[in-house]
Amino acid sequence: MLTDWQAIDRAIDTKLESTLAELGRLCAQPSVSAQGLGMQECAGLVAEMLRARGFDTKVLSTDGHPVVFAERSGRGDRTLLLYNHYDVQPAEPLELWTTPPFEPSRRDGQLFARGVSDDKGHIQCRLAALDAFLEVEGELPCSVKFVIEGEEEVGSVHLPEFVQRHAKLLAADACLWEFGEINHEGTPIQDAGMRGICYVELSVETATRDSHSGMSGSIFPNAAWRLVWALRTLKGSDEMIRLPGFYDRVVPPTARDLGLLEQLPDPSDHFREFYGIKRYLKGIESGLDLMREQVFVPTCTICGLTAGYQGPGSKTVLPARASAKVDFRLVPDQRPSEVLEQLRAHLDGEGFPDVEIRELGSEPPARTDPDDPFLQLVVNSAVEVYGVPQLISPMVGGSGPNHAFIHGLGVPVATAGIGYPGSNTHAPNENIVIENFVRGARHTARVLGYFGAGAALP
Amino acid sequence: MLTDWQAIDRAIDTKLESTLAELGRLCAQPSVSAQGLGMQECAGLVAEMLRARGFDTKVLSTDGHPVVFAERSGRGDRTLLLYNHYDVQPAEPLELWTTPPFEPSRRDGQLFARGVSDDKGHIQCRLAALDAFLEVEGELPCSVKFVIEGEEEVGSVHLPEFVQRHAKLLAADACLWEFGEINHEGTPIQDAGMRGICYVELSVETATRDSHSGMSGSIFPNAAWRLVWALRTLKGSDEMIRLPGFYDRVVPPTARDLGLLEQLPDPSDHFREFYGIKRYLKGIESGLDLMREQVFVPTCTICGLTAGYQGPGSKTVLPARASAKVDFRLVPDQRPSEVLEQLRAHLDGEGFPDVEIRELGSEPPARTDPDDPFLQLVVNSAVEVYGVPQLISPMVGGSGPNHAFIHGLGVPVATAGIGYPGSNTHAPNENIVIENFVRGARHTARVLGYFGAGAALP
Repeated sequence: MLTDWQAIDRAIDTKLESTLAELGRLCAQPSVSAQGLGMQECAGLVAEMLRARGFDTKVLSTDGHPVVFAERSGRGDRTLLLYNHYDVQPAEPLELWTTPPFEPSRRDGQLFARGVSDDKGHIQCRLAALDAFLEVEGELPCSVKFVIEGEEEVGSVHLPEFVQRHAKLLAADACLWEFGEINHEGTPIQDAGMRGICYVELSVETATRDSHSGMSGSIFPNAAWRLVWALRTLKGSDEMIRLPGFYDRVVPPTARDLGLLEQLPDPSDHFREFYGIKRYLKGIESGLDLMREQVFVPTCTICGLTAGYQGPGSKTVLPARASAKVDFRLVPDQRPSEVLEQLRAHLDGEGFPDVEIRELGSEPPARTDPDDPFLQLVVNSAVEVYGVPQLISPMVGGSGPNHAFIHGLGVPVATAGIGYPGSNTHAPNENIVIENFVRGARHTARVLGYFGAGAALP
Repeated sequence: MLTDWQAIDRAIDTKLESTLAELGRLCAQPSVSAQGLGMQECAGLVAEMLRARGFDTKVLSTDGHPVVFAERSGRGDRTLLLYNHYDVQPAEPLELWTTPPFEPSRRDGQLFARGVSDDKGHIQCRLAALDAFLEVEGELPCSVKFVIEGEEEVGSVHLPEFVQRHAKLLAADACLWEFGEINHEGTPIQDAGMRGICYVELSVETATRDSHSGMSGSIFPNAAWRLVWALRTLKGSDEMIRLPGFYDRVVPPTARDLGLLEQLPDPSDHFREFYGIKRYLKGIESGLDLMREQVFVPTCTICGLTAGYQGPGSKTVLPARASAKVDFRLVPDQRPSEVLEQLRAHLDGEGFPDVEIRELGSEPPARTDPDDPFLQLVVNSAVEVYGVPQLISPMVGGSGPNHAFIHGLGVPVATAGIGYPGSNTHAPNENIVIENFVRGARHTARVLGYFGAGAALP
């Protein structure tokens, strides 16, 4: 069957207002996983939206928030798995929102709400593409499965186990990832892989209560000092991470990877301007050097420090407790579990057995081959919507549960979506540009159509 | 004139209820210097209390909160200066108070209120002693000057300059300090000196906004890492402070000092139990070693650390700003201004010119000779009230503006008062034991009487 793309695009346009109204209702339902806010209600709402489209839908329990699974058969023998999440980041700080985060507001061609981009807009965008097929062709161009989890914003803690347990149910030929975006030049981007992460809280307790520094400063152990001394053994100002064996499994980028990086726009000026960065680490200035360092090198980042008195002015207190949030970003083939072991061994070896490690989230790194046929299908079908193919980013610096799909289910994972550099995900005034939403729906429709028609897959 | 001490003590007892009622009114007037709460009102109230006793009283302005100055002539040619403060610590956390902090409550022989010990109870205790003389003898046994400041709880920022400017007005032969206490064995203590302090906030800014650690972790400078690396250059786990020249002016304790320390009760078991300390620094276990280290060694204490995300769970943020509160406790003859210079030079030399130093309060160390006649008068007159002389602590670990009096006015400073280990100063449920108040008033009366009579002064 030859799809009439003009008819599909018209159908997306015709239904746009009701699509956005449905997205508004979805965003008006809070679903803050970190705060346990509205999770069951939102899972139920998402399930209703899928059932209304003829999907066989289940709300499956996990040890955390439930997962919505839905499937509907389509033409041909291929199945596309769509991974999304219905949970959102906390809305705080509320005072920085122009309009309330859970009261969707449309202005200047944008829609504002917590989760409207990450990730409810992506769910809705996919439904818009599916609706168009059902309207124009009366059926889906391929079989479609949705797996929509409720813990992406808290590290997808239970998803890998869920995917493993339900491997048969989730079986598919390829997977479209929960996000996708255009860059600041308006060019669509294909994110072909993600770094892993090992996020820990390091904490020290040296007493059962704080004490007056005048009384105790020269005789009591100080938790803040212990923490500072322990942290500084992890990484020095040369940026080399000092855990034993940390770099052993690092696979350097291939010539193909570097070639792809070279085609991406240089972000160095944007970073300088937007973040006020005066110099990059290791004396790097721009271009390929910067982009290679940004994604193909593992990191050790202090994300937070807490100890003692933090208010205005002075308080002479010797802290009994101190803690740091630290994330390690990992590249293939590093493993979070090994890094945890290396961290414990390192701290013990450096004389810090008193520094406790609490794991707050781990995801192994994973990549899809940039030349994988499905990924290439997504890349090239973008031409019909954006006028250019997606630019392939061989790996991004962030992390997600893609390992469970790429290595667990054995499917290629590709990205296509509605994000843009101003979308303020994880921040106040999260928004989508409605024009981007329409283009995302059109692109998603092409991916579904060509995938169902058997294009470009082996 | 020979004072009838039984009559004086009876007068204190007889007037006790009205004395405590007046103290209650004083404590009911909030005067939180850090929050600018009720300061003018409290200064006015204190001035009224002094005028009611025939003191020539002025409320003198400073660049901060005003100082109440009052004087009244007495017998003989000696003048005793009484240093106190009418400001109190913030009452927060309010939820930990059994009764509201500014609604004085009497129960089980105690009086509870913010400031009831530190320092309003001490003001009232001195008034009780003066009242008794006026009642029994119709005059004061010596000339008395009060200097009652409003910024002790915020580092006495403007007091040294005030004392210098008003040196003639404040001229006296000796000074009784704002506090005094019994230890956990009930023995009165004489604090013959205080360490100095140099309290700073160190801060680093590496960008104009936080960034996502996945995006920036390997290329952006991290303010938290800069701070950790800078801090660790200040002091290593050997506890030696690495500022150039930091120890040059340190005067070691004399044999007399060590002899006095040896007479003090060993605090090591109390610290282990109350603070849950498992080991003291430098392998010290107890006794003289611990007490000498506690007060005669300068310190560098991290009082607080702040950077990035500090809430529950994980947030993958690379902090643009990080800061630490650090106090240096100084021993004679170290100078806060020199330590500030050493700190700047050290940070620059270690490659941290980007670490900013903000001074939040400085007080030089100062001591009164333990064998000074006035101090000995205060020590020995305690026998008549407590049955034993005060134990002399040659120096305490904390800090205060005594340098302005000892070295600025050239007067010996001694302590006598109503504090005890359970008084919860600077904490919820601050209180005095009324029995301690009465003994403090009786002791203060002896100090005034013997001082006026010319006892034991050269």
